[in-house]
This record gives sequence, structure tokens and C-alpha cells, in this order.
Amino acid sequence: MSSGESRLLVTGSIGIDTVKTPHGSSENCIGGSAVYFAMAASFFAPVRLIGVVGSDCPFDLPQTFRGRDVDLDGLEIRGTSRTFRWAGTYGQTMDDRVTDYVELNVLAEHPPVVPPKFADSKFVFLANTAPRLQIQLLSQIKAPLFVAADTMDCWITDHLPDLTELLKKIHCLIINEEEAKLLARQFNLIRAAERILALGPAIIIIKKGESGSLTCLKDGSTFVLPAYPAADVKDPTGAGDSFAGGFMGYLAQARQTDFETLKTAVAYGTTVASFTIADFSLAALTATTRADIDNRLEMLRTFTSF
Amino acid sequence: MSSGESRLLVTGSIGIDTVKTPHGSSENCIGGSAVYFAMAASFFAPVRLIGVVGSDCPFDLPQTFRGRDVDLDGLEIRGTSRTFRWAGTYGQTMDDRVTDYVELNVLAEHPPVVPPKFADSKFVFLANTAPRLQIQLLSQIKAPLFVAADTMDCWITDHLPDLTELLKKIHCLIINEEEAKLLARQFNLIRAAERILALGPAIIIIKKGESGSLTCLKDGSTFVLPAYPAADVKDPTGAGDSFAGGFMGYLAQARQTDFETLKTAVAYGTTVASFTIADFSLAALTATTRADIDNRLEMLRTFTSF
Repeated sequence: MSSGESRLLVTGSIGIDTVKTPHGSSENCIGGSAVYFAMAASFFAPVRLIGVVGSDCPFDLPQTFRGRDVDLDGLEIRGTSRTFRWAGTYGQTMDDRVTDYVELNVLAEHPPVVPPKFADSKFVFLANTAPRLQIQLLSQIKAPLFVAADTMDCWITDHLPDLTELLKKIHCLIINEEEAKLLARQFNLIRAAERILALGPAIIIIKKGESGSLTCLKDGSTFVLPAYPAADVKDPTGAGDSFAGGFMGYLAQARQTDFETLKTAVAYGTTVASFTIADFSLAALTATTRADIDNRLEMLRTFTSF
Repeated sequence: MSSGESRLLVTGSIGIDTVKTPHGSSENCIGGSAVYFAMAASFFAPVRLIGVVGSDCPFDLPQTFRGRDVDLDGLEIRGTSRTFRWAGTYGQTMDDRVTDYVELNVLAEHPPVVPPKFADSKFVFLANTAPRLQIQLLSQIKAPLFVAADTMDCWITDHLPDLTELLKKIHCLIINEEEAKLLARQFNLIRAAERILALGPAIIIIKKGESGSLTCLKDGSTFVLPAYPAADVKDPTGAGDSFAGGFMGYLAQARQTDFETLKTAVAYGTTVASFTIADFSLAALTATTRADIDNRLEMLRTFTSF
């Protein structure tokens, strides 16, 4: 791509997932934050993926992303290591999830290196991992325009100094409701958002699962969007990373991050996630077209307008 | 009022509430579904209130509603009875509530009679009580145009035949998320809405507390609206009945129930409820003006538009 401004990089996990939900199960399927993110973002802009797998990885990633502009030159296959594995079971309501096992494997080793050709990336998403690693990865990007990151409860409780350092280096934090309350030590979500913004990022997006999201900016701008009203939810895995992928992908495509663009990006993230959850692993997302996404975005606008 | 079409009736409880939240407490304050509903609806249209209290009732209801067009001729003071009492404590997150005690008292006796002069009411809200009583109350209204009702878990589990009969007689059911799932035996909210619509009402509004509401019509029309993003929540008591009051009040004012009007009514209900929860009992709601509500409605529109 000739124009540099839409260069979008994601660092995150590539996983072998086993998922059980009330609607079925899927064993040893492809998953991981970087995979869901890249697939979602690829509807909008070229994606550069940084990740690492072991020699046991059963997936043909070039095949997975065939026909999409996803650059896998940052994918490392570490011969002596094993791939990250995760297994989870969802309860009847689909909003409670039990982790059956986690094998960090290669994710517990040193992180992959950012290839020099990716150092000029402008839009960067640091998927959930140790904030120290997120800082290391980010330091290899020369002059990013817009950096977003995810995190989770264990880093908030056990690595707060690292996370606090990270928050001063990013533009946007994308986390879920419980994590936001934990990080802010605030039960009211608006107050939680205000407190997190005071820690560094100009933008916070709080994901509320089937209840949508809350986006707050340092200048007081606020955007509340429900989730797309989905009647058929088979597997919520990857919804959050698909949301981030749609959000960042649209920003990279638009090459702008003003409030109006951010709102549309949140709506695209919401819409893409609604496709992800309709089936296991990447099945629904890979069967989707940009036209499907655009049509559903307009439906979402109709469903939420008064 | 000369025009008949906006005649709005509510039947429900008048209670002596004691509430504790992380932000304070309020002892023996005025509460009850009919009280919150009438106060909320009175911003939009004249209200006729049907309710019953005991001789111990410490509240001067004409004074409570002074300056508002609330007709209290359907208020019965039953000399030998005691007033309904409720006490509840909210936890840190404000979305979990423990009932400390309930004294049904006069609510466990025969219901009040609808005065003949109210029999021509056109908009009717049957607040939560035994569905058999809701049916009896409704049968005293000659030709209602639009009837909405609330219910709760105990009637769904223990009085389902009565509730099923009621559902065939009303236009709109307004219930919370957990109740909808219980009634529909469905965990997906869209599927739950579809199943409840199949039981009778043309409209279902599912309240999701701080996550807003989902409105579904039999013809497939759908409206999803977040709650107003409120930073200061002192006491959520009465939010649901205030929502219903704002919703029905606006419909009565508009004298229409087409989908566009319903959506605006839901937005008004949402907005009025956001005032209720800012303080204990009726304190915040009575300090509010219609102009405040209209301004906040426009804020809500801004916060949710993309």
C-alpha cells in the first residue's frame, strides 16, 4: 500500500482453543486475540500481525487469512516451544465463562521481535498480555499515531506499576466493565472512566458484552452504544478482540481519530463482533463480507435512533 | 382536561420505604410504584392514581403532588389497615439489592375500586401486583386504548395461568431482564422477547437497569437504547416505575402509539428515570422540570448518535 497512514499493527496471541457453549463445542480450533483482531480489521485496512506459535501449531495461517491483506512476516514459529492453548466453557446465559485450562506455553517466553519493516506502523493495537511486554513491543514502533491496548484483571492486581506506565504511552484503553471498575476502584462506570482517563489515555472504551460499550474522552465527549441485538449467539469467544479489530481497522481506513470517526469506529467494532459470536472460532467472521458489515451497521443505526 | 384521549390511569402501590445505599440512607420515605409512576408521568400528561393506604400513612399525598395534575380521587385510605412497607439495602455496585423486609399489609387485602369517573381512561398502567388483581382492575376500564403492565418473578413462577390471561389483555409488557428470561424460558433476550410477544402483547419493553432497555414489537420493529450515562447515582429505587411513568406519560401526551412515538416515549422514560436515581425517594424527581427532562433527552440523543 502506497500511503503510509493506514499501516495497522497488532500484537497478540495465536491460540489453540477448545470451547463449549450451550449450542455446541469446538475442539482445537484457531483462536487468540491477534487472530480475531486481524480477521476483523482486515475488512477495513491492511493488517500487520506480530505473534508467535510453537512447532505444534496445527494451523496454516496464510491459508486462514487467504484473500485478505494480512502481513504475516511478524509471525514467528518457535521450533522448541508449544503453542498457547485455552479451553473454556460458557454457561446457559453465555455471559459467564469458566476457564477449563490455560497453557501459556510460548506466551510465557520472550515476546516476538517486531520486524524492522513494521517499525513505521501508525495504528497499533497491543492485545492483552503483560504490560511490560506491551511497553517493549510498543518501544519498537518509531512514531505511532494512535495506540490502543487491552488488559485484564491479573495485570491490574499484580502488575499495576507496569500498567500505569503503559497507560501514559497509549491513546486508547479498551477494557471490559469489570476490569474498568477494578482499575479505577470505582463502581460507577462514568466515574471509573474519568479516573482511568486521568491515568493517561485520551480515550477509554469500556466493553459491556451484550450490553454494548461506553466510550469516554478526556474532553468530556461521551458515546454510549448498545450491542447489536443478536438472536443467534453460538460462541462469544473473540467478541472483544473482534470489536477492537473493527474499531482500529476503521480508524486506519479513515486515517482520522476525531470524535465523529471514533464513534463510527466503535459502531463498526460492535457490528463486526456481532458476526463473530454467531458461530465458533472464525467460522462466521470468515463467511462475512464488508457489504454484510455495512448493511448491519445501518441496521444498528436504525435500531438505536430515536 | 377537555380532550379525552390523554386520560392516563395508574394502579399500583403507595409505600413507606426504608432504603440504604452506599451513598446514604432514607427512613420511612414515600415510595411505591404508583407514586413514582404518577410523579414521572405528570411531567407529560394529567394522571389518575388508584391506590390504597392504611390509617398509619404519614404522607400528605395532595401535598406531594402539589402543582401537578394528579387526580387522587382513586386514593383510598382504609382506616383499619396498615400501609405497605418495604426496606431494602443496595450493595456497592448498586445493581444488587437485598430486601430487608416487606410488609404487604393493605396490599394483601382486596384491591381498591376504580371510581366510575376513571372508567373512561384511555392509557392504563397496571403496576406490579398479582395478575388476578391487574385483570380485575383493568376490567373496570371501559375502552382503554393502550394498556401496559409490569410483573415480577413470583407471579411468573407461582401465578402463570393468571399472568398468561393478563398478557392477552394488554398491549405492552414492561419487565426487567431477569423476569423476561424467566417468563420466556430463554436466555437470549431477543428470543425471549419473541416468545413473550407470542403470548399476547404487541410490544415488550425489557429493562436492563444501567444498561438501558430493549423494545420489541410483534411486527419485528426493534429499538435498543442505553441508559443515560449517569455519574451520580444515590438510590436506584423507583427507576423502573419512573421509566414506565415517563413512557406512558409521553404516549398520553402524544395521543399516539406508532413506533416512532414509542421510541421517543422510551427515551423519555429513560431520561426521567435518570433523574429519579440521583437522590433518595422523590427528592430529585420533584426538583426536576420538564425543561430539564427535554434538555437531557437531547443529551441522550447526542450520546447515542453516530
